[in-house]
Amino acid sequence: MTGQSSDSLILRSIYDEALEHGECYENLRSLCKDVGARLTGSAEAEMAVQWGKDLLTSYGFETRLQETPIPHWERGTLESGWYKDASGKTYKIKILALGSSIGTDGLMRAKAVLAHDIEHLKTLGEAGKLKDKIVVIDQPFDQKLINTFVAYGACWPIRGNGTSEAARYGAKAVLIRSLATPIDDHPHTGSMRYDEDVKQIPGAAISTQAAEELKAALKQGEVEISLEMDCRTYPEGISHNVIAEIKGSEFQDEIITIGGHLDSWDVGEGAHDDGAGIVHCIEAMRILNTRGIKLKRTLRVVLYMNEENGVYGAKTYADEAIKNGEKHVFALESDAGGHTPRGFSLDGPAERLELMQSFSALLYPYGLNELEKGYGGVDINRLKEPYEGITLIGFRPDSQRYFNYHHSEADVFETVNKRELELGSASIASIIYLMDRHW
Amino acid sequence: MTGQSSDSLILRSIYDEALEHGECYENLRSLCKDVGARLTGSAEAEMAVQWGKDLLTSYGFETRLQETPIPHWERGTLESGWYKDASGKTYKIKILALGSSIGTDGLMRAKAVLAHDIEHLKTLGEAGKLKDKIVVIDQPFDQKLINTFVAYGACWPIRGNGTSEAARYGAKAVLIRSLATPIDDHPHTGSMRYDEDVKQIPGAAISTQAAEELKAALKQGEVEISLEMDCRTYPEGISHNVIAEIKGSEFQDEIITIGGHLDSWDVGEGAHDDGAGIVHCIEAMRILNTRGIKLKRTLRVVLYMNEENGVYGAKTYADEAIKNGEKHVFALESDAGGHTPRGFSLDGPAERLELMQSFSALLYPYGLNELEKGYGGVDINRLKEPYEGITLIGFRPDSQRYFNYHHSEADVFETVNKRELELGSASIASIIYLMDRHW
Repeated sequence: MTGQSSDSLILRSIYDEALEHGECYENLRSLCKDVGARLTGSAEAEMAVQWGKDLLTSYGFETRLQETPIPHWERGTLESGWYKDASGKTYKIKILALGSSIGTDGLMRAKAVLAHDIEHLKTLGEAGKLKDKIVVIDQPFDQKLINTFVAYGACWPIRGNGTSEAARYGAKAVLIRSLATPIDDHPHTGSMRYDEDVKQIPGAAISTQAAEELKAALKQGEVEISLEMDCRTYPEGISHNVIAEIKGSEFQDEIITIGGHLDSWDVGEGAHDDGAGIVHCIEAMRILNTRGIKLKRTLRVVLYMNEENGVYGAKTYADEAIKNGEKHVFALESDAGGHTPRGFSLDGPAERLELMQSFSALLYPYGLNELEKGYGGVDINRLKEPYEGITLIGFRPDSQRYFNYHHSEADVFETVNKRELELGSASIASIIYLMDRHW
Repeated sequence: MTGQSSDSLILRSIYDEALEHGECYENLRSLCKDVGARLTGSAEAEMAVQWGKDLLTSYGFETRLQETPIPHWERGTLESGWYKDASGKTYKIKILALGSSIGTDGLMRAKAVLAHDIEHLKTLGEAGKLKDKIVVIDQPFDQKLINTFVAYGACWPIRGNGTSEAARYGAKAVLIRSLATPIDDHPHTGSMRYDEDVKQIPGAAISTQAAEELKAALKQGEVEISLEMDCRTYPEGISHNVIAEIKGSEFQDEIITIGGHLDSWDVGEGAHDDGAGIVHCIEAMRILNTRGIKLKRTLRVVLYMNEENGVYGAKTYADEAIKNGEKHVFALESDAGGHTPRGFSLDGPAERLELMQSFSALLYPYGLNELEKGYGGVDINRLKEPYEGITLIGFRPDSQRYFNYHHSEADVFETVNKRELELGSASIASIIYLMDRHW
């Protein structure tokens, strides 16, 4: 058995294991229900580290913890918002602080100003219209875009930079429209950062529905917003990446890293983001091992700590790799949810893209039709600069439902489909096997 | 603007309309919530006819009702099951009569026999082991199959023929394991038929979970099952297909039919099966019309009555087409759910398959990667014999989640994703436009 015929049988064996004897779905249930939301620095994040180590050890893999510094931010216990419209009526509004935000230091009250996006915010700021105001930034997803990650990327600046930009013009606080696909009532949190040259002000997300309501109220006249948030940042702490590996049969010093991030936001259960990626990669390794499929290179699964608010764990992993003189040839990340697989995107040399695309006929029967040049992932991207020419592969599941759940209380186990998740694990095991064999 | 460039702009316009101004999701909400489950012959099925006519008329399409005979079966109000295991303990078991089944005529009680599939059932029957027994047929989906419709097709005989086959050997009733992907507690109903040469006996579905439990109980020893069902068949009645059309600009006498079925089973809301197909096709027509995209041929949307238990409406449609000397060139059906689009399957001449596949580069950006030879659909299949050489196209959404819901109380509006549904409508509008233009 050689070449395509052998590859085809090995892929079949991988998918049979995933679909008939799969363990990823029950592993995800455990991560979501036994551990739950696991923001970096929380007790639950530490439970997740232990959970990952125990699971990988139970599969018989050589497993270790890699110490990493971490940031530590907490939402606190007060998180309330109201607005009063032009007629004097008051409405409650669900708010969800953005990660790293400061609190309001008691009740904060100010007139609202609406900005459509960062450019509009700057224009308003230059005209002196943001001073002492609470700025509502309302940039909806562009629904015309077929891939929802592209719509997300276009709105990302309002979450990442909007609070700092508004602070620059003297605003008191920022509320952003959630970076989400549907109109519903879940606020979606996410990371933001403060520029060093501005006075820090609070930043929070409101649901897309609430953004629509506030926009309508602002059309009617003046709106006054009241906020109370007691989130705060603590000194940096220590946590761990969880790392397990299987030594290669021929080129032991060449390392293939696959992984996702173990931390999540502090609402929901981090099921799609990124519980799915965690169990995908653990399962891919289990499948290859159980089915006796040997890789020529050393395969390492890394459960990164702190992708959501700092990417500290991935930086530690890359720094240590360089310090230890490790040879990294390619890395794969699953951090786009547990939905039905569509393909992979590859960031690396042209000949590696050609190699991946040469497997298209083998992958087609499994629904992996999109083998494209593109982004690898936030965590593995840390390997890019130190390892020039490294190949980074991002697993690409269907994107349509992802931003209904992402970073919100809706990201729970029940939204993940068993077979879709299992197919993801098999897809990852397959591409690793093929790339390693034909490299 | 000509050729690929013009086609590409038209596809973009179709998708923009679907994703920014789409109406299919709210239409589906109305069909599921205002009408609900709509089994042929029920008052709700008649409401659905009116619903379809009103909606199509509101869009300004020439709309008519086409009278068709229909079967009329009702589940009744008694539907209960229990089993007593070898230790004498009694357990309740949810049962769901198969469509067309007779009732039990009071309480029925008999020893259970387990058959793994139709072949095994026949072997047991030949050995005299089914006489006066209630036969439990437990054939699970083959989880290894990537497309769940293939797994469904393999199990179909236990539902369609199992009851008649068991009756042939003197069995008292049949319980089948639901034709469903997951292990859960919803029974899934569906059609069955009685062979003319056997005495009719009752047939019902039990959930996959219940099938597992019964199987385990039978391993322990004798199991006695009690059933009560008062379902029954009424005389044939009259209902209607709903038909709307837009005349072609060049070849008015050549007809393109697109459609799905308006009836559903009497549990759940018929959201994926086939509310999705109904709103997909209505929306495809609305999009082409709204965006001023003229077809050369006459486009007709047909909301078929009675696909689920008889296919009477589709037979009437085909019979009338022949009687009226209509010229049918191609037909498309959406009856595989409202999940994210994957492509189309085509049943027709080789040159039409080549034509469809020639659009692969145009369709790739929209996730339509699977353009294959394959089945068209149950309703449009009625056009196949009278119209030799006709091209039948089946819309193919992702199949992974479909048999979690199909024919069960779980098939409700909330399981349908807005964007996935909208992409389906746009996919259908696009393939119709392309096929018509380049035919």
